[in-house]
Amino acid sequence: MTETVDLLVCVTCRYMDRRDADPDAPRPGRLLADALAGALPEGITLRETECLSNCSRGCTVALRGPGKWTYVYGNLAADQADTVAEGATKYRAHPAGLVPWRERPEHFRKNCIARIPPLE
Amino acid sequence: MTETVDLLVCVTCRYMDRRDADPDAPRPGRLLADALAGALPEGITLRETECLSNCSRGCTVALRGPGKWTYVYGNLAADQADTVAEGATKYRAHPAGLVPWRERPEHFRKNCIARIPPLE
Repeated sequence: MTETVDLLVCVTCRYMDRRDADPDAPRPGRLLADALAGALPEGITLRETECLSNCSRGCTVALRGPGKWTYVYGNLAADQADTVAEGATKYRAHPAGLVPWRERPEHFRKNCIARIPPLE
Repeated sequence: MTETVDLLVCVTCRYMDRRDADPDAPRPGRLLADALAGALPEGITLRETECLSNCSRGCTVALRGPGKWTYVYGNLAADQADTVAEGATKYRAHPAGLVPWRERPEHFRKNCIARIPPLE
């Protein structure tokens, strides 16, 4: 059985340009997390987090799971929930989380912030 | 007892400027790892890794440990082993790995690439 993976979404992320210049508007990271809630297939657990420390390249998500590489992706927009869900689904399906580059959603190919190997 | 932490060092990191233009020279990530070998206090395990996927901001290291936040730091030079060792020592000493910003080595303050919360 494929194990459950975590999809961490930074709910404090802002954009670094003028798209969210209104300080009272909901943060785009918050909007992205809200869009993902209830929109993920079984086996992917949404975990809202505060600051994944990728503030200059938000919005930010991370994927992790038992025995898998952990991946951080950035430069996401609030309306990219479908992209994140697709990437998370493919990540879960690969035993080590190593989705071949060409099979990743296009945004994930170009916006990988970092990855960390699984515990030995 | 404070538990052992992992210091992951990317040995495939290059600089993104002209400092290592010679393709036959040892990579700076390799040199950084070599400088750290034997130079770390007890309780910090050096783990050489190939590509932490922070290629545009290398050299790159990551710190992780049981119950701690995982941190990725970048833009390091091959001669910054002392900085990395200091940062790793402080990281190990904090139960959650959350070293207050002002207490981190100066390079770490400005070059945190990402962080990931501990498993619940």
